[in-house]
Amino acid sequence: MNNFEFQNPTKLIFGEGTIAKLAKNIDKNKKILMTCGGGSIKKNGVYDQVKEALAGYDVTEFWGIEANPDYATLMKAVEICKTQNIDLLLAVGGGSVIDGTKFIAAGSLYEGDPWDFLSGAATIQKALPLAAVLTLPATGSEMNGNAVISRRETGEKLAFGSKATYPQFSILDPNALRSLPQRQIANGIVDTYIHTFEQYMTFDNKTMVMDRWAEGLLQTLITLAPSLIAGNADYQTYANYMLTATMGLNGFVAMGCVEDWSTHSIGHELTAMHGLDHGVTLAIVWPGVARVMKEYKMDKLVQYGERVWGITEGTNEERAEKAIQATEEFFKSVGMKIKLSDHNIGQETIQRIVQRFKERGWTLGEFGRVTPEKTEEILNAVL
Amino acid sequence: MNNFEFQNPTKLIFGEGTIAKLAKNIDKNKKILMTCGGGSIKKNGVYDQVKEALAGYDVTEFWGIEANPDYATLMKAVEICKTQNIDLLLAVGGGSVIDGTKFIAAGSLYEGDPWDFLSGAATIQKALPLAAVLTLPATGSEMNGNAVISRRETGEKLAFGSKATYPQFSILDPNALRSLPQRQIANGIVDTYIHTFEQYMTFDNKTMVMDRWAEGLLQTLITLAPSLIAGNADYQTYANYMLTATMGLNGFVAMGCVEDWSTHSIGHELTAMHGLDHGVTLAIVWPGVARVMKEYKMDKLVQYGERVWGITEGTNEERAEKAIQATEEFFKSVGMKIKLSDHNIGQETIQRIVQRFKERGWTLGEFGRVTPEKTEEILNAVL
Repeated sequence: MNNFEFQNPTKLIFGEGTIAKLAKNIDKNKKILMTCGGGSIKKNGVYDQVKEALAGYDVTEFWGIEANPDYATLMKAVEICKTQNIDLLLAVGGGSVIDGTKFIAAGSLYEGDPWDFLSGAATIQKALPLAAVLTLPATGSEMNGNAVISRRETGEKLAFGSKATYPQFSILDPNALRSLPQRQIANGIVDTYIHTFEQYMTFDNKTMVMDRWAEGLLQTLITLAPSLIAGNADYQTYANYMLTATMGLNGFVAMGCVEDWSTHSIGHELTAMHGLDHGVTLAIVWPGVARVMKEYKMDKLVQYGERVWGITEGTNEERAEKAIQATEEFFKSVGMKIKLSDHNIGQETIQRIVQRFKERGWTLGEFGRVTPEKTEEILNAVL
Repeated sequence: MNNFEFQNPTKLIFGEGTIAKLAKNIDKNKKILMTCGGGSIKKNGVYDQVKEALAGYDVTEFWGIEANPDYATLMKAVEICKTQNIDLLLAVGGGSVIDGTKFIAAGSLYEGDPWDFLSGAATIQKALPLAAVLTLPATGSEMNGNAVISRRETGEKLAFGSKATYPQFSILDPNALRSLPQRQIANGIVDTYIHTFEQYMTFDNKTMVMDRWAEGLLQTLITLAPSLIAGNADYQTYANYMLTATMGLNGFVAMGCVEDWSTHSIGHELTAMHGLDHGVTLAIVWPGVARVMKEYKMDKLVQYGERVWGITEGTNEERAEKAIQATEEFFKSVGMKIKLSDHNIGQETIQRIVQRFKERGWTLGEFGRVTPEKTEEILNAVL
C-alpha cells in the first residue's frame, strides 16, 4: 500500500423524493445558474421537481451541454457567470453536464483561457460552488473533482481534476433512471466497471481492503446488469446501480493504490476522432490493455478471475486469459460491440492516435509502461 | 436500501513518515492543545515526531486521558480551553484520547454542563476544530464524529455523535502500531469486526455494495489477525489493519443500511460496571445477540456464513449457527474469553443492566426489538 491522502467533501443525498431537499441545501439568496443537457430532464420529471423545489429562487437556465461537453458550448456559460454574478452552479443531468459545469465553475473565476486547465498550462486555483442532481449514473462526477472536456474544433478530449471542483452536494434519486435508454444504461455499467479496473487492475500492491471493495463493485455490477439491460429493474436495482457508479470513482476504492487509466486515455481518442460513446470505447480498449500488459497485471488478473468469476483451474496464464474472456462476454452481454472493426475503425485511426501520443510524449498506465508503441500493439489487439 | 445522507469531511493522511505533515496542515498562528493518554506515545516515538513537526508552534500539553475517557478528567481540559483561548485540539493517541478530545472540543464552546451531550439533554451545536494523530486502530474515531464518554462517579458510559466533531484531518502512520501490546491489538480487531457487524448484521435491506464492502472488511480482518496476534506482522499488515479499522466506522459501509448497535450498548454497561476492555465486552455480547435475535437476522447470518466463512451446507438454521460458531472461534483465536463467567460476572450484573435499561426506557437494535427482557435473555445466553 502506498502512502496517500484522501478527502472527499461532497455531501451525498440519496433516495426517493430527495430532489425536494434542494431548498434545504441552498441559501435562499443565492443566484443560481442551472446547467442542463438536451432536454431529457423535461421528459422524466426531474426538471419539474427541481423547479418546484427551487420556487422563489433566482434561477437562470443554461441548456445544451452535450454528451462529451464541448469547450465552445461551455464558454457561453462562463460568459454568463462572469457577467451575471452567479453564486452557485446547479448541474442537472448526467456526467457530461456535471463535468461541463465543473469547467464552467473554474473557468468563471479564471482570467485566462480555461482550456489551460485541459492543456496543462494552468491548474485550477478556485471555482464557483457547484452542486448536482444526477440523472445518469456512470462517471462518478457527482462525487469527485474530475471532468473530461472535448474540443470539437481540434478533435481533442482531455481531463482535469481539482479539489476546487467537488460538488458541495449531489442529489441522487434512483427514480430518475427509470426512463434511461438501454444504450445509456449499458454505457454506464461499462464505464463504472472500467473505472473500478483503472484503480484495481494493476498489480498486488497489498491494498487488501481496496481490492475487496473494488471486487465488491464489480460483483454488484455483474449481479445487477441483466435486469437493468432487460428493462425490468425495480427501484432497489436502480438504487444499487446508482450507488455503485458513484462509489466507483469517488476515491473510496483508490486509497494506497497504483492506478492505470491507460484504457481511458486511449478510449478518449476514439471518442474524439469518431464520436464513439465513452463506455463503448472502454469495452473495446480494455481487453487489449489487459492482454498486451498481461505480464505486469498477472497476479491481479488471477485474483480477479478467482474472486469475481470463480476461475480457479489452470496455469496463471490460462486463468488470466479466462478472466479477460469472462469480462469480454460480460461487456457483450450488455450489448457492447468490442472490436474496432465493429465500428469501422482501422489502421488510419490507430496510426493517428499513436502519432498524437508521440507528439504529447505520453507514456500511460502504472509506471508509464504503455508507450506509444504499446498503444499501437493494444489497438491492433482489438482490431 | 433506505434513503440516506452521507458526508465525511475528514482528511485522511496515511502512511510511513506522515506525522511530519502536521505543520503543512496547521496554520502557524494557531494555539494548540495537544491531548494525550498515559505516556505510551513517549515510548513509541510518536511524541517526539509530533513535537519535531510542531517546533515553533504554541503547544500546550494535556496528559492523562485514560482508556474509557472520564468526564472528570476531560472537564479539566475544557477549563484550559475556555481560559487559554485554544484554537485547535490535537489528539495524539487511540480512540479514547480522540473521543475525549471531541468532548473537550464541544464542551469548550458550551455554556452548560457538557454531560448534557451524553444524557441527551442537549445536542452539540459547535465545537473547537480538532485533528488527530492515531496510535491505536479500533474505534474509527479518527474519521467520524462519534465519541463514547465514561463517568466513573456514576458508573455510566454513554455516546454522542455530531457533525461538529469530525476531525479536520487525521494522520495514520502504521509504524505507530509496532509497539502495541497483543491485548490492544486483539481489542482493536474485535472492535472493528463488531463495528462492521453493527452496520451489516441486520437483515437483507438490498444494500448490495455496502454488504460486499462490510464482508470485505471482515475478510481482511480474518486474513490479518494471525500475524498481528503472533507479533510477526510486517508494515503492510499493520497498514491494512489500520485502514480497515478506520473504514469500519466512518460511514462508508453504512449507506442506506438499517443498523443494530445493541451489542455496543450492552457492552458499554459491562465496561462501566466491571472495567472490562471494550473489545472484550463485544466478543462476549455479540454471540448472545446473534442467537437470541436469530429469527430477524437469519438471511444476513446465512449470507455472512457463506461469503465470509464458505459455509454452504445445511438448513438456514444450521448455517446461521455455524456462522456464529465460526465468529466465536475467531474471537477466541485472538485471545478473547467470550463468556461472562470467564470474567466472574453473573446474575447480579445482568439484573442491574436490565434494571438500568428499563429505567432509561431503552429498546435497542434494529427496530427496537432488543427490549430489556431480550437483553436479559442475551446476557443469560453468554453466561
